[in-house]
Amino acid sequence: MAYKQDDKKVTPRSQDFAAWYNDIILRAELADYSPVRGCIVFRPDGFAVWEALRDELDRRIKETGARNAYFPLFIPQSFLQKEAQHVQGFAPEVAVVTHGGGKELEEPLIVRPTSETIINHMFAQWIHSHRDLPLMLNQWCNVVRWEMRTRLFLRTAEFLWQEGHTAHATREEAERETLTMLETYRGFIEEFLAVPLIYGRKSAAERFPGAEETYTVEGLMGDGRALQCGTSHFLGQNFAKAFEIRFLDEQNQMQFAWQTSWGVSTRLLGALVMVHGDDQGLRLPPAVASTQVVIVPIWRKPEEREKVLHAAANVFQALKTAGVRVRVDEREGVTPGFKFNDWEMRGVPLRIEIGPRDVAAGEVVAARRDLAGPTAKSKLVSSTVAERVPALLNEIQKNLLTQARDAMLANTRQFDSYDALRAQMEGEGGGGFADIYWCGKAECETKIREETRATCRAIPLDQKVEVGACIVCGEPAPERALFAKAY
Amino acid sequence: MAYKQDDKKVTPRSQDFAAWYNDIILRAELADYSPVRGCIVFRPDGFAVWEALRDELDRRIKETGARNAYFPLFIPQSFLQKEAQHVQGFAPEVAVVTHGGGKELEEPLIVRPTSETIINHMFAQWIHSHRDLPLMLNQWCNVVRWEMRTRLFLRTAEFLWQEGHTAHATREEAERETLTMLETYRGFIEEFLAVPLIYGRKSAAERFPGAEETYTVEGLMGDGRALQCGTSHFLGQNFAKAFEIRFLDEQNQMQFAWQTSWGVSTRLLGALVMVHGDDQGLRLPPAVASTQVVIVPIWRKPEEREKVLHAAANVFQALKTAGVRVRVDEREGVTPGFKFNDWEMRGVPLRIEIGPRDVAAGEVVAARRDLAGPTAKSKLVSSTVAERVPALLNEIQKNLLTQARDAMLANTRQFDSYDALRAQMEGEGGGGFADIYWCGKAECETKIREETRATCRAIPLDQKVEVGACIVCGEPAPERALFAKAY
Repeated sequence: MAYKQDDKKVTPRSQDFAAWYNDIILRAELADYSPVRGCIVFRPDGFAVWEALRDELDRRIKETGARNAYFPLFIPQSFLQKEAQHVQGFAPEVAVVTHGGGKELEEPLIVRPTSETIINHMFAQWIHSHRDLPLMLNQWCNVVRWEMRTRLFLRTAEFLWQEGHTAHATREEAERETLTMLETYRGFIEEFLAVPLIYGRKSAAERFPGAEETYTVEGLMGDGRALQCGTSHFLGQNFAKAFEIRFLDEQNQMQFAWQTSWGVSTRLLGALVMVHGDDQGLRLPPAVASTQVVIVPIWRKPEEREKVLHAAANVFQALKTAGVRVRVDEREGVTPGFKFNDWEMRGVPLRIEIGPRDVAAGEVVAARRDLAGPTAKSKLVSSTVAERVPALLNEIQKNLLTQARDAMLANTRQFDSYDALRAQMEGEGGGGFADIYWCGKAECETKIREETRATCRAIPLDQKVEVGACIVCGEPAPERALFAKAY
Repeated sequence: MAYKQDDKKVTPRSQDFAAWYNDIILRAELADYSPVRGCIVFRPDGFAVWEALRDELDRRIKETGARNAYFPLFIPQSFLQKEAQHVQGFAPEVAVVTHGGGKELEEPLIVRPTSETIINHMFAQWIHSHRDLPLMLNQWCNVVRWEMRTRLFLRTAEFLWQEGHTAHATREEAERETLTMLETYRGFIEEFLAVPLIYGRKSAAERFPGAEETYTVEGLMGDGRALQCGTSHFLGQNFAKAFEIRFLDEQNQMQFAWQTSWGVSTRLLGALVMVHGDDQGLRLPPAVASTQVVIVPIWRKPEEREKVLHAAANVFQALKTAGVRVRVDEREGVTPGFKFNDWEMRGVPLRIEIGPRDVAAGEVVAARRDLAGPTAKSKLVSSTVAERVPALLNEIQKNLLTQARDAMLANTRQFDSYDALRAQMEGEGGGGFADIYWCGKAECETKIREETRATCRAIPLDQKVEVGACIVCGEPAPERALFAKAY
């Protein structure tokens, strides 16, 4: 932790969202640039957030019945070519190992951009009978995609993710699994990261290369642009046919397996910053914060010091016993104001201040990171912190979700006229979600994308059966779709 | 889980240790070969063991004050060349990325064989003052070393590990950290994996490339060969000078930092197999077993079925509530004998059998995987399983360590004569540990290695101050050293 305060001010969010985003990540020490093009370093405070969310998501994934495994980093180049759409989608952005152990390799190896091919090669060795199904595996790993324009967390050459891969005996079971994982992601991201989402099917143009159907959960960032936060793909039998994953069914007939794959990545860290952050820094939901509460003891005279530190130690112990992730900032030689700013930048959800008068009154001051102004502060009776603080943390968790949901709803608009849609996307503020009738034809989607830069983020599930007029061509449109400019 | 039993017998351990080792790993479904040269697949049962040991070691590492971070997979080729010994050690076995995004790279990228260079480049950005020290980071990641001869878990082109990297203000503090981590590894591997170890300094010839001193923990495998299980390196100022990691000390003088690095890898899974396994399969210590207890209900007549399954469900619930990782094997269409063999192969520490007579008597049969013959089985009163089973699991954990320690001690011998050492290493059974006086000269070490294939595994710490005669040259030797043939 640095002792000297960086003099350079954080760029205000309203002034330059992208600069603000980078400032926050660097200043809160979540990540740093690396000397390797497009690759970043996850610093301890950033990696701790990733560990917290990884552990919780891992628990939820395992509850669905999937188990973790680990497959090779390298994929023979020929594997990538076995599924036609898959190779088209990924070949342009791969990193290629051509030499190993001082010699040129006979067949170059691809650094995995995703693992469908190598995993399905193994599935073909393991799956022979309907008794071997369903096979549901997940892996946490690094993947590499050679992106031309990179951005901290959101788009990096190497990133960390989990990728689930499953094989099933029937189409219905695989389709159900695809939606189970979509709902797992939605619940996890909304409840744990306090990031509200819209969700639904992708348009054909936005599908995963090799999938029959892609489902997505998408958040709306603070600048009004959408961020894809997780995807779940129904692969049909495309990879099963390419890799010959076949099994004898209960009638002793040979069948191809039905498959899914699904993943979320370290870009979720970017979502946390862009949804919750403000000009003072990060605002971490208590569920993911490695420090949920920081206690700042305040004193001026040496004779006050011992009493204040003693009271701080008592509160620390009471909170620790109550299961709260808490620390005391005992640094000397820096002012309380410096400490307040420092922990606000790092996004700690609740600050507890203890001065000599608080000690005398048997109280502490609690300052919530999710609120601003006088309402953020309240007094707590010291002897009640073990009950009051966990309740406050729950409130903060809920309130961050409420604030973000309100912001998303305020920035989601229905449009009936193409000109109004276009004006909205051309105006300031990213544009938000546009809820429109779209006929489903690629040419209308392309027109919207080329003229407004908004893309189809999701076609919501379970729509009321209504038919409207496509916002572009006026032809009948059986469904509404959410469009937005996106990261 | 496969229903059909593989007809092929496991190669007996005494007949061909290497074939037995591979048979067990494949049959217990810990791992599988992959289509990528030298890379393996960690199957769910193997990866679950890795997750259990990773989580426990991660907890212990964090207790020492280190924090997790994540650095890029790729290292610019020029970085590897900055520390002279380091590049010599690793350059011959690296995998090289020459193309990315369809273009040839200006500077080839090395897939990390270890991360000293990239991490120390970042340390130089972050460390300026003594207040920034100590900096203690750890990362869990994959690394790649292009090995010519590979072996499941022990030597693979890609493997998983943790690597800790620390920087300190003084030599003494860095030396202390090196030994703290050695002791962390020793405690973890002995207590958690039940693998007994010898430990000490490496000889100069066996040091990590770039280290001033390497410390090691080594186990003795079932075939009498040693396996390096973890290393902790005192790097001195070698990397600090190569990467210019400097700080202002309390006297405002510029100093180079003092550093350490330390790691253990997925080869620990190999140690578990080779130390504890037998001809029936794996024997997992309860601490790492994802299934600690399997309940096998046994019945013949349909009217017995319900009662037995009901009793099994009660025992399951009681054990689950007691925090035991337990499952019931309710598979139909396979015999109890098949199930016994299957779970013995997978190394489950305790089996509970429940038949109609046991139900009538209010008892269950407990069969320990760590014992053989009639002593392995005992009757437990059903109502006491929640207390008795955790106690039994503790006993099994301890007994596996005791058995392994007895085997290691029985296979550790002092030698005064070079001929006797040579005869031992040339005889059957791997040779075990040879405890000898060695003068410390490289030529004597080389002679031993070339003529007996035994290498210096460790020079134990805290030896009694005695001087003996070098077993090779007869010159005064200030210390004893442990030599063995090694993996």
